[in-house]
Formats: sequence, structure tokens, C-alpha cells
Amino acid sequence: MKARVTVMLKDGVLDPQGEAVRHALGALGFSGVTGVRQGKVIELDLAPGTERDEVERMCEALLANTVIERYEIEMG
Amino acid sequence: MKARVTVMLKDGVLDPQGEAVRHALGALGFSGVTGVRQGKVIELDLAPGTERDEVERMCEALLANTVIERYEIEMG
Repeated sequence: MKARVTVMLKDGVLDPQGEAVRHALGALGFSGVTGVRQGKVIELDLAPGTERDEVERMCEALLANTVIERYEIEMG
Repeated sequence: MKARVTVMLKDGVLDPQGEAVRHALGALGFSGVTGVRQGKVIELDLAPGTERDEVERMCEALLANTVIERYEIEMG
């Protein structure tokens, strides 16, 4: 089975990487882009029957820095 | 309006970052993780009425390296 974890910086935390992308898009002529936030996505192949709880523990332990990042889990 | 772009390495392209995460999860006792792929997610705030086509052009021009990466666009 698979799970997808999306990790984004929390609102209010400066995102210089996203800001750099926004600036570069503007320089390329994409003028309608008013904001960019960049995060990471982690696709996990899991043993059958793995619970969402266990993926949550992975996020808390390693995948996200919960001081500055939030995460979403999609099981599927 | 918003769009979310997910960029992953194509299948067959080595993903050392994902492999490092898999190894670290194993070391932390999460033994059921058989594979990990890591990618990036880019959330765009767009001017109202922006077409999916334009986001696709952003991906081709800047957001993804289409030689080794594939991308998915979700408008919403």
C-alpha cells in the first residue's frame, strides 16, 4: 500500500525558496503569480495493513519539523 | 485562485534523497517501509481566470526538469 505525505512551511514562516520561484516566474513573463509556497512530498511504499497512525508517527519523528512545518497524510 | 504542482522524479531515476529517508525510517524502527520517493510541491496563488495551460507552461519552463521529472497539476 502507499501513502503520500505533503510537508509545507506553516503560514507565517518565511519561505525564501518559494519567493525565489515567484520572482523567477515573474522574470519569465508569468505576471499573474501573486504568491508561491514550496514544500516537499514523500511517497511511501508500506507493508499491507499499515495504519495511518504509524505514518503520523513517521511525520512527527522524521519527515516534518513540526515547529515550522505542517503535514498532510493521504493513504491510498 | 490556487494551483498545486507536484514534481516527482520519473520512475527509474535514482532518488538518493528518498533512499536516505527510507534508511532513516528503518533505523528509527519503522520496518514496514519498503520504498520512499521524495519530490516537491509548489503552491501557486494565481490571478483569477488563469488557465491550466499557463501553469503547464510554468512547469515546462521552470518548475520541473522534464528530462528526469514528471509533474501533476491540481487546479482548485
